[in-house]
Amino acid sequence: MSTTICAISTAKGGAIGIVRVSGSKAIQTVDNIFRGSHDIKDAKPFTVHFGQIIDSAKQDEIIDEVLVSIFRAPHSYTGEDCVEISCHGSSYILQRVIELLIKQGCVMAKPGEYTQRAFLNGKMDLSQAEAVADLIASQDAAMHRVAMNQMRGAFSKRLAELRNELLELTSLLELELDFSEEDVEFADREKLFNLAANIEEEISRLVDSFTTGNAIKNGIPVAIIGAPNVGKSTLLNQLLHDDRAIVSDIQGTTRDIIEDTMTLHGHLFRFIDTAGIRHTSDKIEKMGIERSLRAAEKAHIIILVTEPGVPFPKIVIREDQHIIEVINKSDEFQALTGLGMDWLEQELIKCIPVQSEDTVLVTNIRHKQALSLALSDIQRAKQSLEYQMSGDIISEDLRLCLTHLAEIVGEISTDDVLGNIFSKFCVGK
Amino acid sequence: MSTTICAISTAKGGAIGIVRVSGSKAIQTVDNIFRGSHDIKDAKPFTVHFGQIIDSAKQDEIIDEVLVSIFRAPHSYTGEDCVEISCHGSSYILQRVIELLIKQGCVMAKPGEYTQRAFLNGKMDLSQAEAVADLIASQDAAMHRVAMNQMRGAFSKRLAELRNELLELTSLLELELDFSEEDVEFADREKLFNLAANIEEEISRLVDSFTTGNAIKNGIPVAIIGAPNVGKSTLLNQLLHDDRAIVSDIQGTTRDIIEDTMTLHGHLFRFIDTAGIRHTSDKIEKMGIERSLRAAEKAHIIILVTEPGVPFPKIVIREDQHIIEVINKSDEFQALTGLGMDWLEQELIKCIPVQSEDTVLVTNIRHKQALSLALSDIQRAKQSLEYQMSGDIISEDLRLCLTHLAEIVGEISTDDVLGNIFSKFCVGK
Repeated sequence: MSTTICAISTAKGGAIGIVRVSGSKAIQTVDNIFRGSHDIKDAKPFTVHFGQIIDSAKQDEIIDEVLVSIFRAPHSYTGEDCVEISCHGSSYILQRVIELLIKQGCVMAKPGEYTQRAFLNGKMDLSQAEAVADLIASQDAAMHRVAMNQMRGAFSKRLAELRNELLELTSLLELELDFSEEDVEFADREKLFNLAANIEEEISRLVDSFTTGNAIKNGIPVAIIGAPNVGKSTLLNQLLHDDRAIVSDIQGTTRDIIEDTMTLHGHLFRFIDTAGIRHTSDKIEKMGIERSLRAAEKAHIIILVTEPGVPFPKIVIREDQHIIEVINKSDEFQALTGLGMDWLEQELIKCIPVQSEDTVLVTNIRHKQALSLALSDIQRAKQSLEYQMSGDIISEDLRLCLTHLAEIVGEISTDDVLGNIFSKFCVGK
Repeated sequence: MSTTICAISTAKGGAIGIVRVSGSKAIQTVDNIFRGSHDIKDAKPFTVHFGQIIDSAKQDEIIDEVLVSIFRAPHSYTGEDCVEISCHGSSYILQRVIELLIKQGCVMAKPGEYTQRAFLNGKMDLSQAEAVADLIASQDAAMHRVAMNQMRGAFSKRLAELRNELLELTSLLELELDFSEEDVEFADREKLFNLAANIEEEISRLVDSFTTGNAIKNGIPVAIIGAPNVGKSTLLNQLLHDDRAIVSDIQGTTRDIIEDTMTLHGHLFRFIDTAGIRHTSDKIEKMGIERSLRAAEKAHIIILVTEPGVPFPKIVIREDQHIIEVINKSDEFQALTGLGMDWLEQELIKCIPVQSEDTVLVTNIRHKQALSLALSDIQRAKQSLEYQMSGDIISEDLRLCLTHLAEIVGEISTDDVLGNIFSKFCVGK
C-alpha cells in the first residue's frame, strides 16, 4: 500500500487510452513527466489539465499530448491520491508512458489492485468490490441490475441487518451467561427461538436466491429435449441466430451437449441442445441421451420438441421447472424458416423469475458458501434453543454465524481470500 | 456541425470505458442524464464531476457511477463544448449510455468525426488531423516520432514556408504582368529562376522522403534471397519469432512471397521470404522466382543467404540498397538454432536511414501525390522561366503549385476528400 501503482485501464485498440496512477506519490510522479501551462503539483482535485508527457532522458521527446485528471485522497476511487492520464490509444504510447512512470518509481499494478486498495482504504466492502468486476462483465439488464445493486451496497445493507439481529440475539444470551451462576434465565427462550427462526429464514432465502442469481449471471439454463430428428439443433441455431450445431437428416447427429448463450429482450439465456431421446443400442448415443436427461434436470426451462404425429418424450419434471411444448414442422411452428420464433421467445420471457427491483440476489459462489455455513450455524443454534441447551453452546454457534457473514463483506479476510478475489479482476481496475 | 455527437472512444473489454459527447448541446445533454452533488450545466471547464448516469424513463434506474469531464468551446479537442463520461468498461453500460444520449437528441458520431470537427473548427489543419490517426496506429519509435512531429505541425510549417516562397515568386511575376503593356521586365529572371529551383529542390526532397516515410510507416522492406534450401524460411521464422513460413527439406517449398512485420530495437521491419533462386522448369516455381527478384528490387535491405560451399546468388543491386550476406549452417550462423541472430539484428539496425529529429518525412500517399503534382508545376514554371516564356504562363503554373500544396493542409478540400480521409479513422476519435 505504500507503493504508487500504475496500469493501462483501457483495452487495446481504441481512440483513447487511459493510464491510471494511484498512491501517495501519484501526483508528484506524474508532475515529473508532465509539461503543461502550469504545474499539477498544486492542482485542485477534480481538475483536468492539458499538456505533454515528456521523456527528459531523450532530449525532452514528446511522448503524447494528454489530458491529466487529478484526484486527492480520500476523495478518489482508491481513497489515495490518483491521476488519470488520457492518451491517444496507441499501444506504443501507452507502453512508453508506463515505462516513464516505472522509471519514476511506480510499480505495475496487479489485477484488481485499484479496487483492492479501495477495499483496504474502506471505500467499499468486499462484496461491493466483487460487484465491480461483475458490473464490468455484465452483458444484460438483469446482471447489470444485480451487480449495480450489490456495488451500491444493497447486499451489504441486508447483511448488516442480519448481523444486527444476530448481535441482539447474542447479547440477550450473553446477558444470561453473565448471570448463569445465579441460575437466572433472563432471556425469554421462545422469543430467542423466534428471532433465530427469522434469521434462519432470511439466510435460507439468500442461499436459495443463488439459483436465480447464478442463472442471471451465467444465463437462464434452457434445455432443448425431444426425440431424434425433430429439429432440436435447427431450433438451437435459430435461437442463437447462428450455425452453432451441426444439422443433418441423420438421427443422432447431436451427441455432445452443445450450449451457448444469447440475450433475448435483455435477458441472458443459456440454451442447451441435447441428443435425441430414443431407445438405442449405440453406446455413444446412449451416453449422449443420459447427458440429455441430466441437462434437463438442471434446466430452469425445458423446451420439449416434437413433430406432428410424434408424442412428446416422457421426462420427469420438477415443480420449479417450466415446460414449453413446441410442435415443429407444423403450420404454427417451423424452426427451419423461423415461423413461430417470436411466440417461442415470448414464452421464454414469461418463464423468467420476476424479481422486484430491491430483491437481493446472491450471484457469487463465495457468498453462497459463506451463507450456507451461516445457515448451518443458525440452524444448530435454533435446535439448541429448542432443546434447552446451555447458553454458551448457543452463543458459540451465533458467533460462528456472525463470522461467516463478516467474511462476505471482508471484515474478516485472509490474504489468500483477497488474492483469490482480486486476481480475477482485469489489470487497471 | 450543428448536431451534438456521441460515441464510445475506448476499445471493448477494458476496466474503463469512455463516452465522448461534442457539440453545442453536449453539456446540457449530459446534464439531463447525470445526477451528481451539483449541476454540471454551470460547471467550470476542465473540471471532473462524480455522479450517476440515470435512466429517468425507467424509475431513475442507475446505469453507472461515472466521472464526467467538462470542456467548453473553443478550448476542447473539437473546438466545441465537450463532455467525456468515464464509465465502468462494460459494453452493456456503454451501450445504455449511448442510447440515453441518443434519446436526448445526440447523433452517433461517424468514424473520425471528432477530429473532422477539430479540423473544420480550425483546431488543426488536414495534415495534422491525418497524423492523429497515424499516431494512434503507431507501433514503434520511428513511426511515433514522424506522426507526433506531423501532428504538432512540423510538416504544416515546412509547407507554409514553401508557400511563402511561392507567393513571393508569384507576386514578383504579377508585378511584371501588371505593367506588361509597358513592356517593362521588373523581375530579375535569374533571381526568379533560382527561387523556383530552390522550391523545386525542397518539394523534390519531400517527394523522395516518401520512400523512407513509407518504410517507417509500413516497415522497412527486407528481402531474404538465396538459392533453394539454404534456410531462408527458417531465417524468416527466427526473425519473426514465429512459425510463419512452412519449412521443409524439399527444394522449392516456398513459392508465394511470405511477409510479415516485426519490431526490432524500436524499428519496424517488413521481412519478405522468397522462393529460392535457381534454374527450374517448374512453371509455378519459375513464377515464384520472378517474384523473388521483384521483391529484391523493391527492398531497402537484402539479406543474401547461402550455405558453406554454395556461392551467393547473383542479383542486380541498386545503389541505395543494403546487402547483408549470411552464410547459414556455418560455425558463425545457424538460423535453426538462432546462432548469430544478434549479429544479424545489429546489421539490420545499421542499415536504417538515419534521420535527424527535425527531418520532415512524408508518410501519407495523399500528401505524396499532391507534392508530386506540385513538383511538376514548379518544374514547368522553372522551364518557362528558362525559356523566357511570358509571365502569365509561369504565373498559372505557380498558382497550380500553390493549390496542390494547399490541398495537403486542407485549405482547399472537397467533401469527397474529407470523407475519404476521416472514414479511415476509428469511431470515437
